Amino acid sequence: MTGWVAIAGLGPGNEAMVTPEVTGILAQATDIIGYIPYVARVAPREGLTLHATDNRVELERALHALELAANGARVVVVSSGDPGVFAMASAVFEAVEAHPEFTKTDIRVLPGITAMLAAAAAVGAPLGHDFCAINLSDNLKPWEVIEHRLRMAARGDFAMAFYNPRSKSRPHGFEKTLDVLREECSPQTLITFARNVSHPDQTLNTVTLAEATPDMADMRTLVIVGNSATRRIGKYVYTPRSAT
Amino acid sequence: MTGWVAIAGLGPGNEAMVTPEVTGILAQATDIIGYIPYVARVAPREGLTLHATDNRVELERALHALELAANGARVVVVSSGDPGVFAMASAVFEAVEAHPEFTKTDIRVLPGITAMLAAAAAVGAPLGHDFCAINLSDNLKPWEVIEHRLRMAARGDFAMAFYNPRSKSRPHGFEKTLDVLREECSPQTLITFARNVSHPDQTLNTVTLAEATPDMADMRTLVIVGNSATRRIGKYVYTPRSAT
Repeated sequence: MTGWVAIAGLGPGNEAMVTPEVTGILAQATDIIGYIPYVARVAPREGLTLHATDNRVELERALHALELAANGARVVVVSSGDPGVFAMASAVFEAVEAHPEFTKTDIRVLPGITAMLAAAAAVGAPLGHDFCAINLSDNLKPWEVIEHRLRMAARGDFAMAFYNPRSKSRPHGFEKTLDVLREECSPQTLITFARNVSHPDQTLNTVTLAEATPDMADMRTLVIVGNSATRRIGKYVYTPRSAT
Repeated sequence: MTGWVAIAGLGPGNEAMVTPEVTGILAQATDIIGYIPYVARVAPREGLTLHATDNRVELERALHALELAANGARVVVVSSGDPGVFAMASAVFEAVEAHPEFTKTDIRVLPGITAMLAAAAAVGAPLGHDFCAINLSDNLKPWEVIEHRLRMAARGDFAMAFYNPRSKSRPHGFEKTLDVLREECSPQTLITFARNVSHPDQTLNTVTLAEATPDMADMRTLVIVGNSATRRIGKYVYTPRSAT
């Protein structure tokens, strides 16, 4: 039996947002690997081994998947959202780079609905013009890089989607982010805080940059910052397709 | 009967990438509105009216959807990819803004797999770190805005995904884009040209910025430009999760 590794995106949480492609690959798997809450979304069945691990062990998890595949297993590494956006796909390729014996492994990536697209859809169309996606976690990059990117994105008048805006271990990063935005953007810039996107307890909160406070975000929040043209229309927030 | 408008993303082309949420809303529709090739993806059935229109009539199409819904129709406006990314969602909200009598219309946006996520997955994980999405069409914004955004994105060391890189009516825009990138980025920067993403005739071509030529892109191509850390590993292209 020839093993393979598929890195599949389960979408933001609503099972109706899981693509049939992903559902199909899960049905073929012998092994599921991933962070505990994502593995919990896969139904147990005979012949399927679930390997749920804690957060922050992405490289060990990736190596485990590659080793199982080398022994003939059909392994699905599950991510929430899209595996290529701040998720497990890059970690698997990092593991291949560190262990070149896996370079010939059959690896495929199956896209999913990433949180920013579900959050944007829930509130209207705030990413309807040019935009950036920025991971605000400084676990893997220095704060100076984040700050520089925020300034470049603001000066380019991009809308922005922020992943991982705030956690208990990084209580001040989002406060600093708001400070940078206040230096670069109009106080009337619209910011949407989308928490638990696509889950039954989803909440949406849109305020101006002047009104935004750090505690509006937590680790389950996706933040969307509008560009200079982003506006409200009724209960919706959208960015027009033209530049002004 | 209370009408509504749903703006739904059909994904990049592969039917296995259409979410069950979108399939479910199509089954409830009385009317489907959209650009000819996207409407052609919806199976005809009794009680369903298909309204296929040509490209570049987005606002008329949006207004038509709102008018039908006001008369009780259940209207699905179909987009390829994700409706909120350079697609129909913003056009519908623009139409609402121009016709405030529709402000109370029940409008929902259903996300889909946008082309850049499918293209990134097909080649590996080139968008695994901070990135920008830029529409290179200058139909709705001046070239100067595009050029400025390209420079800001490059100086922020963002990976970039380009939609609508080149068309017959805009033969020189992508050439100018490559010129700007050559001024701002290393000649070793990796560029992937993903054509007809997720279709059976999908092609992937990754070259360095030094090797890239304007004719590598056409209107069916999604272009991904790596950041300074994007690299090849075997047949894959990926961007590591750390900043360097």
